[in-house]
Amino acid sequence: MAKRNLYLDTKPVDEAAALYLAALQRTVDIQYETIPVSEALNRVTRHATYAKYCSPLFNASAMDGIAVISQKTKDAAETEPVVLKEKEDYVVVDTGDPIHPPYDAVIMAEDLVETEEGVLIIASAAPWQHIRPIGEDIVAGEMILPSSHKIRPIDVGVLLSAGITEIEVVKKPEVAIFPTGTEIIEPEQTPEDGNIIESNSRMFENMVTEAGGAAHRFPPIMDDYKQIRDHIAEAVGEYDMVIVNAGSSAGTEDFTVHVLRELGEVLVHGVAIKPGKPVILAIVKGKPVIGLPGYPVSAYIGFENFVEPVLSMMGQTPAKRRESVTAYISKRLVSSLKHKEYVRVKVGKVGDKMVAAPLARGAGAAMSLVRADGFCVIEQNSEGVEAGDPVKVELYREKAEVENTVVIIGSHDLILDVVADMMPDRHKGMFVSSTHVGSMGGLMALKRKEAHLAPIHLLDETSGQYNISYIKTVFGDEKMALIKGVGRTQGILVKKGNPLDIGGIEDLAGCRYVNRQRGAGTRVLFDYKLKQLGMEPEQINGYDREAATHMAVAAAVGSDGADAGMGILSSAKAMDLDFIPIGPEEYDFAIPQSYLDLPHIQAFLEILRSEDFHRRLDELGGYSYEHAGDVVLI
Amino acid sequence: MAKRNLYLDTKPVDEAAALYLAALQRTVDIQYETIPVSEALNRVTRHATYAKYCSPLFNASAMDGIAVISQKTKDAAETEPVVLKEKEDYVVVDTGDPIHPPYDAVIMAEDLVETEEGVLIIASAAPWQHIRPIGEDIVAGEMILPSSHKIRPIDVGVLLSAGITEIEVVKKPEVAIFPTGTEIIEPEQTPEDGNIIESNSRMFENMVTEAGGAAHRFPPIMDDYKQIRDHIAEAVGEYDMVIVNAGSSAGTEDFTVHVLRELGEVLVHGVAIKPGKPVILAIVKGKPVIGLPGYPVSAYIGFENFVEPVLSMMGQTPAKRRESVTAYISKRLVSSLKHKEYVRVKVGKVGDKMVAAPLARGAGAAMSLVRADGFCVIEQNSEGVEAGDPVKVELYREKAEVENTVVIIGSHDLILDVVADMMPDRHKGMFVSSTHVGSMGGLMALKRKEAHLAPIHLLDETSGQYNISYIKTVFGDEKMALIKGVGRTQGILVKKGNPLDIGGIEDLAGCRYVNRQRGAGTRVLFDYKLKQLGMEPEQINGYDREAATHMAVAAAVGSDGADAGMGILSSAKAMDLDFIPIGPEEYDFAIPQSYLDLPHIQAFLEILRSEDFHRRLDELGGYSYEHAGDVVLI
Repeated sequence: MAKRNLYLDTKPVDEAAALYLAALQRTVDIQYETIPVSEALNRVTRHATYAKYCSPLFNASAMDGIAVISQKTKDAAETEPVVLKEKEDYVVVDTGDPIHPPYDAVIMAEDLVETEEGVLIIASAAPWQHIRPIGEDIVAGEMILPSSHKIRPIDVGVLLSAGITEIEVVKKPEVAIFPTGTEIIEPEQTPEDGNIIESNSRMFENMVTEAGGAAHRFPPIMDDYKQIRDHIAEAVGEYDMVIVNAGSSAGTEDFTVHVLRELGEVLVHGVAIKPGKPVILAIVKGKPVIGLPGYPVSAYIGFENFVEPVLSMMGQTPAKRRESVTAYISKRLVSSLKHKEYVRVKVGKVGDKMVAAPLARGAGAAMSLVRADGFCVIEQNSEGVEAGDPVKVELYREKAEVENTVVIIGSHDLILDVVADMMPDRHKGMFVSSTHVGSMGGLMALKRKEAHLAPIHLLDETSGQYNISYIKTVFGDEKMALIKGVGRTQGILVKKGNPLDIGGIEDLAGCRYVNRQRGAGTRVLFDYKLKQLGMEPEQINGYDREAATHMAVAAAVGSDGADAGMGILSSAKAMDLDFIPIGPEEYDFAIPQSYLDLPHIQAFLEILRSEDFHRRLDELGGYSYEHAGDVVLI
Repeated sequence: MAKRNLYLDTKPVDEAAALYLAALQRTVDIQYETIPVSEALNRVTRHATYAKYCSPLFNASAMDGIAVISQKTKDAAETEPVVLKEKEDYVVVDTGDPIHPPYDAVIMAEDLVETEEGVLIIASAAPWQHIRPIGEDIVAGEMILPSSHKIRPIDVGVLLSAGITEIEVVKKPEVAIFPTGTEIIEPEQTPEDGNIIESNSRMFENMVTEAGGAAHRFPPIMDDYKQIRDHIAEAVGEYDMVIVNAGSSAGTEDFTVHVLRELGEVLVHGVAIKPGKPVILAIVKGKPVIGLPGYPVSAYIGFENFVEPVLSMMGQTPAKRRESVTAYISKRLVSSLKHKEYVRVKVGKVGDKMVAAPLARGAGAAMSLVRADGFCVIEQNSEGVEAGDPVKVELYREKAEVENTVVIIGSHDLILDVVADMMPDRHKGMFVSSTHVGSMGGLMALKRKEAHLAPIHLLDETSGQYNISYIKTVFGDEKMALIKGVGRTQGILVKKGNPLDIGGIEDLAGCRYVNRQRGAGTRVLFDYKLKQLGMEPEQINGYDREAATHMAVAAAVGSDGADAGMGILSSAKAMDLDFIPIGPEEYDFAIPQSYLDLPHIQAFLEILRSEDFHRRLDELGGYSYEHAGDVVLI
């Protein structure tokens, strides 16, 4: 057995960040550069900037008309018009033309009468009328922009008008990014067994750009002490900051921390954050060098908590601020006192309250970040929150978007993604969010007023009817409705070509099965079918192995780890598997009647009924939709 | 007299924009391009994107440890340890390593005891424990991103992990920008009489960038029909959109509208918006061609109202959204029923309410956009708002910043800019905003609770004392305080070298004078001095010519339009003028005692007392500061 590193220390997040920033403040000098104003958008000024010229540069006509000597017009009246002669008494001016002595007023073109002797006026001109005085907008010597100011398009315009063509700004921090790992491959390569597609460095590149830095991404380095050391040693000479990913933990092949101890000082190895614990905060030759973990969510959270504050300090940019709301959490979240936890959530407004449904919590669940509307933090000193507790959610999206979102919690089907895709295109500013907890979980969420809709497919064994009896059982006398969704076919997913020659449920005893989680409609159906056949769960190898969605079942069957699972035809098609049909079922949406009139629910119904939606169902395959969008009051 | 164009029609803003967008929807095809995912940040997806690979790509170990066959471990217990042999019963795995049959579980390294016969375990391994199943995060065939989605850094990471290396996105609209005008020069050139520095096109370039387009700025074109026509005709062949600036009005040299009528169709010429009326909305060869006015504020507002919606449509990006607040307007605003008006305002929170102070309303007042915290709209059907009325303000800054701002309304001095510059550097998240209405105007604003502080310099002619008696007169028994500011020297500003040999106020009768507005402390002082000398206002040529700040007086005296004005030494220095001292005065800040403990007022006091501030006063020249920051209770 190979030797492993010692376990990491775990410092509280705020303490680790504060300690690191304080140390960097002693070793890092903010750098500046002088650049053309026309290229200075979003850059941060070093000093206050003062105007070189006035704007306007001269006393200028504010109208099209004639420039006159006001004194010569003072007797003009309707009864006593005054005649002015060109060149002698006036000059013609357009808006913006300069006005010089002896002229000291402008008369508008529309107040003039042209005659043969000259121009006739019937009112006197007040001194300085219709003249924009020099410096009306900007006076030379006046402060135009303060120091530490982020330059906007209007600032570019005003600086140039005031004669400023170059400006000293904070230099963008140059960040070198090193992916490491013997098993990683570039996205263009075809993966072989054990390969991992390297994508974190590309995410970091873009995060650096967004934080106002300049990213330099290098090709992957092997897990080799000397190679990693040589690259970092060279990079700290050329760049302002270095990010190493991954190898930041304490495994046999995690060399980063040892390299950084040799080259410089490791201030922190391991922080009390989840996901994201194995972070290294080091200083080499005065420069920040940060080791981030390889799991994508850990990498992302590590970047936000430790790289962004350093870039903000070096680039003198304000820290990213997010809008936050109080929302009620839909599920109990247990968290350890050992760390602060970032839980990604879907957020929506149901009735009067904002609700937050937790997404997958794993460090590898990158899709949870893609799908999240925001996140809530469970502090290190907390053991978690109970379902229904209020939590503070920092939003990734605008609050207005979240408020116009149809919140769906329940059984999973691929059509939910299709509806979510179609919604904002057909109904501007409206969105669909879905969380997958199975049919029964959905009804419970609806009961707790955490969702607008619960997609369900629950067979009543006695009546053979779908869904309605379950709603009645859960909601009793409450005024409920069923929005008809789609008919779909359940069946057994098996590998392409059906190598084990499975013909039905009765053949599953001999193979490796993947089941769905408790409360899932598909598991209810499977149990019903087993009972019909007189089979026991113990006969099924893998009855206790649970996958959370149809797609997860399909992925397992597509791998060498399972032979069969139950699911819908579209998931078999997506993973190119064979499919043995078991029977049709009805996938519908439970909804309280009081929500039916909401504009975004009406938009949802419109989509279910639309031809575009039906065409996309045909592309997925295995769906019928003759009743889609019908509303049955219960 | 040259022939002028007909006057413009003026369409209501919303009607003009709707009409134009509807017409463009018929002629413009959204364009798409396929680009590498690694370069797709902030681009907008065309279609929904589906995963090509699962992530993880295989069943992978979630721990460092050994992969085992769960069946072989099922009898292990503390009392009955099981010994496993390498290669036969287990293989060593690190986190992320693939797990293949027959192995179906992982035991963590820390749960193993190494012995000579093999590895010893004291607990059974459940099937699939510590294994990340294939597709746990992403399943091949699953929708990763919807259509019309703006790509974020995390999306780049996930797309690459899922095997997507190229993506079809909306093409950035390519926008050609043509500055026109015989009088305009490039910012690098030295201006001569009548020249205008061309800066709008640079502002547009950056506004196009921010709106997601690609800007192509061309060198200025002369006011020449043929040249303008040829450039536009060529540009509509190559670019997706053309902006022409200026020449959009109806003056003698405003050719744009005629050119556009020849080349295509002018849908709108003139909109009921102020500033910004002379806008041209045209379509040439199916492409949008927009003529924008030359005044910078008009240009900016025209761009926001007409160019941005077109870019948003062509680029499929959401319209810019701004936070809005309700604020109480500090000044009556009269507006015409003929147009919708955009009034730039400074915003702050005084006591419990947000207050908005209007900035300069002119179309040429570009600094009003630089200084604005937001704007309020006076609708076309409104004649304006009364002082104290609530208005909706759309914010350029974050609400939190506005709430932590010291609101100063009153007399102008250059030191206010210096304090505003120093504040956010010394006190993170705190700001200073100032509006200049003269000393008496400031006290009135303070009385109406629209400001925290009123800077004043008001001489009591009877006592010879500054400021305090005025505060008592205005506020009676209210608990007020005076924060001591600076001592400064008032004097007469004359041209460099004092060509008219002015020695004091008594010499002003013969020259062209610029006065300050009513209520300004400097005007009070001037009136006092005139009275002392037994002079009458009628003796002063220009007594009624008003400038709003010391700097505006300095600019006028620096031009050929005036010979003298009264002001402070620092303004003479900024404009390189000569200065004839009249006498010292006290420039202080009136404040209600109840505001003294506010954190941002304490920060303001800290700055007044700081050595850094005193050093910057020395650089400006003419200030004394021995009492700066002292608080006198009244």
